[in-house]
Amino acid sequence: MRTLNVALGARAYPIHIGPGLLQRVDLVAAHLRTPRVTIVSNTVVAPLYLDAFVASLEKAGIGVTPIVLPDGEAHKNAATLDTIYDHLLAERCDRTMTVVALGGGVIGDLAGYAAATYQRGVPFIQVPTTLLAQVDSSVGGKTGINHPRGKNMIGAFWQPQLVLADTDTLKTLPDRELSAGLAEVIKYGLIRDLPFLDWLEANMDRLLAREADALSHAIERSCANKAEVVAADELEMAKEGGRALLNLGHTFGHAIETGVGYGEWLHGEAVAAGTVMAADLSRRLGWLSRDDFERAVALLAKAGLPTRSPELGTDRYLDLMSHDKKVIAGRLRLVLLKRLGEAVTYGEAAPGDIRAAIESCCG
Amino acid sequence: MRTLNVALGARAYPIHIGPGLLQRVDLVAAHLRTPRVTIVSNTVVAPLYLDAFVASLEKAGIGVTPIVLPDGEAHKNAATLDTIYDHLLAERCDRTMTVVALGGGVIGDLAGYAAATYQRGVPFIQVPTTLLAQVDSSVGGKTGINHPRGKNMIGAFWQPQLVLADTDTLKTLPDRELSAGLAEVIKYGLIRDLPFLDWLEANMDRLLAREADALSHAIERSCANKAEVVAADELEMAKEGGRALLNLGHTFGHAIETGVGYGEWLHGEAVAAGTVMAADLSRRLGWLSRDDFERAVALLAKAGLPTRSPELGTDRYLDLMSHDKKVIAGRLRLVLLKRLGEAVTYGEAAPGDIRAAIESCCG
Repeated sequence: MRTLNVALGARAYPIHIGPGLLQRVDLVAAHLRTPRVTIVSNTVVAPLYLDAFVASLEKAGIGVTPIVLPDGEAHKNAATLDTIYDHLLAERCDRTMTVVALGGGVIGDLAGYAAATYQRGVPFIQVPTTLLAQVDSSVGGKTGINHPRGKNMIGAFWQPQLVLADTDTLKTLPDRELSAGLAEVIKYGLIRDLPFLDWLEANMDRLLAREADALSHAIERSCANKAEVVAADELEMAKEGGRALLNLGHTFGHAIETGVGYGEWLHGEAVAAGTVMAADLSRRLGWLSRDDFERAVALLAKAGLPTRSPELGTDRYLDLMSHDKKVIAGRLRLVLLKRLGEAVTYGEAAPGDIRAAIESCCG
Repeated sequence: MRTLNVALGARAYPIHIGPGLLQRVDLVAAHLRTPRVTIVSNTVVAPLYLDAFVASLEKAGIGVTPIVLPDGEAHKNAATLDTIYDHLLAERCDRTMTVVALGGGVIGDLAGYAAATYQRGVPFIQVPTTLLAQVDSSVGGKTGINHPRGKNMIGAFWQPQLVLADTDTLKTLPDRELSAGLAEVIKYGLIRDLPFLDWLEANMDRLLAREADALSHAIERSCANKAEVVAADELEMAKEGGRALLNLGHTFGHAIETGVGYGEWLHGEAVAAGTVMAADLSRRLGWLSRDDFERAVALLAKAGLPTRSPELGTDRYLDLMSHDKKVIAGRLRLVLLKRLGEAVTYGEAAPGDIRAAIESCCG
């Protein structure tokens, strides 16, 4: 087991990474205020892991009230959130009870937001079961739901007490979801860790073959990179760089997700195609060479990810992007690549270049 | 103008108290990240103050998008919250925009919770226009909405940048609402400020006559008392005492509000009747003398408040109270009076005494 510490002062917490962690209820028990947890999971993950996890917890004297939600981004909304609130209230959960998220990013976002807002906040533990959630949504405290008018528009920053990233759970992950997770892994190489990018190019075959050592290394490097960024900018208040750099490909990617309808593209797939757009624009600004651009595209493609975006029409892209949270005072700020391994936030891209980047990456 | 500082480290903020503050847009402008605000108000307050406030802000170059909600506790729910989100998204408000609450406690709770959760948190300014909101809900960062299963069950701690308590707005306050505010004012005397309790007994007539000096003093002493408590226990995590002491009468009071249906009793009215129950139980425990008890009841009655509770049935009271957030690990913890001017949290009251206190205060 590897352990990373996310340094956030009074809100610091450990991330444990390795095989067999779902059986390590001692790690969970050490962080409970009272021996009572509500496990939030979904209809895909629960049949695989819930019963054994509940049995281990109950054997350790911990009371468990599970709730199983429908699967998918389409359910990351106010209605599903309300079923969690209803469950917590019906079970008379008080402020000392801990909410445990057992599932992917959607479950983590929903359960975390419920924990952030139930009785003005209760403790929270993440047990991410997808690569995407293990490398991305389990670090940083972002929780929330989608709104019909935009993705992740409602939410809160709420740090977990603990994250358990059990690499065994990746054995059952569909190929498409493994690839979606790799989009965020590759992102860390692109934005701030060139040696890791080199490592990924050399080891992508091992990751796709789900070799445990390779996966553990990729998760650890990704979480370490993200933890460094988050520790320096917990609430995403930095005006330049900071936490915003983690959003490489996300402004374009959110436009794709909203444009095609939530749930059609996986988040990681949209980020991959969005990253290609951001890289294309970076090339137009003279920051990336054509070779750099093609290297980024090739690595994403090798990971099994889409590198072309859907044809929504350029105006529709721009309209959807203008709703993104990265808009500050009406100005579209994008995360772009100054070079491979170094990202910047940039608000000066010419509209013509943005349009050209969108057009050349669609279809 | 009097100014109090609520000491919360990086989240410290000033409370300005006095007449004519709605015209002091300079105080607001100094706290904006960008010159853009969304004012959240209601159908009772907006006709009295909104137009003039908007005009002053616009004259100072601040862009304003107001939203006027229906009035009353019955609307402090998820549906009304969603109309605020819709408004913010339709107006394309970004994370630098500031939400301003112009109204009473319900507006402050709703607007504050929207600010806490819109795009994971935007700046917030309180302009409370009722005595209750000025002395209570504008200090402490509690925001939230009701759930069909319980009051204030969903929420967040979110500190404002600034509070403007304009005493001129109390001139239009209905008598019943003035009294409801006085319930919380009296509470500060009862729980931690015996000299203030003495002052209230001597000056209640002046407060009911709405003398500006008396009101300003009462608001300042109440806010100062609350600010001291909140600064020591921002997130209500203290196991004994701390912020929980502010809930004198609230566990009984919430049972009344839920039992008769939200909006039938004003919050302050329910707190007053609940405070009598708490004082009665304190007397049964031998902490208050009969004279002390009657002194508390007389002051509440003089302020025009109910001191008898509705006949819901004792079992119904106990059931409703067991849903209260003050329940810790299944144990009912009540705020009681050790003596006049000193409150304690107490989880050892005998069920028979609790039942007797409820029964003797109903009807």
